[in-house]
Amino acid sequence: MTTEFELIDRYFSRPARDATLGVGDDAALVEPAPGHELVVTTDTIVSGIHFLPDAEPRFVGHKALAVNLSDLAAMGARPRWALLAITVPKADEAWLSAFAEGFYDLARRHDVTLIGGDTTRGPLAITVTALGEVASGCALRRDGARAGDELWVSGQIGSAALALRHVRGDVRLKGNGLEACMARFERPIPRIELGKALVNVASSAIDVSDGLVADAGHICTSSDVGIEISYANVPSISDVTHLKRDQLVREALLAGGDDYELLFTVPAGESLQMDSISARVGLALTRIGCVVEGNGVRVVDESGEELAVDIGGYEHFA
Amino acid sequence: MTTEFELIDRYFSRPARDATLGVGDDAALVEPAPGHELVVTTDTIVSGIHFLPDAEPRFVGHKALAVNLSDLAAMGARPRWALLAITVPKADEAWLSAFAEGFYDLARRHDVTLIGGDTTRGPLAITVTALGEVASGCALRRDGARAGDELWVSGQIGSAALALRHVRGDVRLKGNGLEACMARFERPIPRIELGKALVNVASSAIDVSDGLVADAGHICTSSDVGIEISYANVPSISDVTHLKRDQLVREALLAGGDDYELLFTVPAGESLQMDSISARVGLALTRIGCVVEGNGVRVVDESGEELAVDIGGYEHFA
Repeated sequence: MTTEFELIDRYFSRPARDATLGVGDDAALVEPAPGHELVVTTDTIVSGIHFLPDAEPRFVGHKALAVNLSDLAAMGARPRWALLAITVPKADEAWLSAFAEGFYDLARRHDVTLIGGDTTRGPLAITVTALGEVASGCALRRDGARAGDELWVSGQIGSAALALRHVRGDVRLKGNGLEACMARFERPIPRIELGKALVNVASSAIDVSDGLVADAGHICTSSDVGIEISYANVPSISDVTHLKRDQLVREALLAGGDDYELLFTVPAGESLQMDSISARVGLALTRIGCVVEGNGVRVVDESGEELAVDIGGYEHFA
Repeated sequence: MTTEFELIDRYFSRPARDATLGVGDDAALVEPAPGHELVVTTDTIVSGIHFLPDAEPRFVGHKALAVNLSDLAAMGARPRWALLAITVPKADEAWLSAFAEGFYDLARRHDVTLIGGDTTRGPLAITVTALGEVASGCALRRDGARAGDELWVSGQIGSAALALRHVRGDVRLKGNGLEACMARFERPIPRIELGKALVNVASSAIDVSDGLVADAGHICTSSDVGIEISYANVPSISDVTHLKRDQLVREALLAGGDDYELLFTVPAGESLQMDSISARVGLALTRIGCVVEGNGVRVVDESGEELAVDIGGYEHFA
C-alpha cells in the first residue's frame, strides 16, 4: 500500500538546490540574500471554488503555485522558495503525478525551489506558501498611491471570469477567444518580470484577484485616496470589445476576479517609461484611470457618466 | 452580509508589531535577525482527520498553530511569524471568533506575529505556515545521529492516541488520566523551550507527530543509522503503566502519533546535561534507547526480546 511518505518522496522531494535544508526535515532552512527582505504569502485553492472538480490536475498544480507567485509579483519580488500543503481524498497516483508536473513546470520557469510541505487526506484543496526576496525598502505596496498618479493595468482583464461564464452558459465565446479565456482561467500567468520592472517606478501595486474594482478599492483603502477608472479603456479580449455594454460582460471585466494581472499606480512623471517596460517584459500595459483625492472607486463611461458596479468582486462568502 | 474581507479584518488583522509589513498587502515583509537562518514549515489540519468535526473551535485554533510550532521546536528555532490559510464552509462568526482566540492565545505565548493569510470557502481545514529563526548552522536536524548516541524523549508518549481510542471506545480512561490525554489530543504543547535548549547539545531531533517508531525511523533514514528502543522505558501516563502489555496500549505508545513531544539523540558525553535541561524547561526527559550501526528501528522488551510493531504510524493513506 502506498503510504503518505512514499507519496511525498515520489513527487515532492526533489533536491533543494537553493536552500540549506529542504524537504525531509521538520522544517526548511533558508536565507534571503544580503540587503534583501523576505516576502511571504499564502493562498489556498479549493476544488469547486477556485477550480472545477474535474479540472486537469496539471492545471491545478500550475494554478496553486501561480496565484501565490502573483502575490510576489505584486510586491516586485523575485520568487525563491515554496511550500506545498496538499489535501487529497485518496492517494491517486495519476492525479498526483500530473499535479506535480504542472506545479514543477511553473516552479522551474521562475527558479522556485520546493522546500517543504504536508500531504493530508481530506476534501481536495491546496495551500501554497511562496517566499521571495526584494531589496530592503523597495517592495511595491498598496499604500503608496497619491492623488495625481496614473492607474495602469497589465494584459487583459475579465478573461478568467468570461471563461467561467461561458462554462455556465451565461455568455458564448468561441475559437481563439474561448481558448484564450480558458487558458487564463486554468493557467494564470504570474507577472513576475513586470513586478520586478515596476520597483522604484510604481507608487503602489496589487494583483487583480478579487476583481478590478475590488482590488482598486484595496489600493484606495491602504493609500487613503480615491480612484477613477475609465471603463472604455479597460483592456479585454477583442471578442468581447463590441459587447462591453452587455451587463454580464461588464461584470466580468469590472468585478470578475481571478485575472492575476497587475494593477498599479505610477506618478505622472514616470509614465513615459511604460512603453519601454511593456516592450521589455513583452506585455501590454494600459492606462485605465487616475488617482484622485477622496476615497473609493468610481467607474465612468466615455461621456464621464458614473457606471453602477457591484464591487463585491470575488467574495467567497457573499 | 459579512464578506470575506470583513471577516479577515475582524479576526486576523492585528497590527504586525514585528514585521516590516503584515496582514493587508499582497504579501508580508520580514527579515531574520543578522546571523540567523530562517526556519519555515507548513502543516494542515483537516476536520475529521486531525480534529473531531465538533471540536471546540478554540482548541482547533490552538492545534493548527501548535503542530507547526512543534516543527520549529524540533529544529531548535525561535518562532517569530505565522501565516494562516483557513477554509470554512460558512462565515460562522462565533466559530471564527473562538478559533481566533485559541490561535492568538498560543501565538502570544510564543511571541508569534500573524503576518498574512487567506480565508476561503470550502470543507473545514486549516493550513498554517510558521517561520522562526535559528543561529546560522545551529539548527537541530534529523541527519546528525551517530552510533553510540543515546535516544531521549520529552514528556509522555501515546496520550493523544489513547484519547482517540477512548473516544472510539477501544480503551477506557477516567479521571485525571482521561483529562490529561484529552488535553494532549486537543491542545498539544509545542516544546519550544526544550528545542532551543538542545541546540549544540542534541545530535538530531524530530517531533513525535507520526508515531514514536515511525519518527525514530525518520532519524534512522536521514542519519543512516539504526535505533533500538526499550519499550519498558517509554514514558506514558501512569494510568496505563500497568497496561503496557495490552496490544491497544502498546500501539498507542509506539505508533500512535500526534504527541508533539521531542525525540532526540544525544552524544553519550552530553547526557549529563539532561537533568539540568529538564529542570530548566520544566519537562521530564527520559532516555528510551540508543543509536546503533545499521538501519531501521528495533523495539525490545525488558528481556531484550524484539517486539513486533506496525510502524505505520500516523499514515493518512494507509
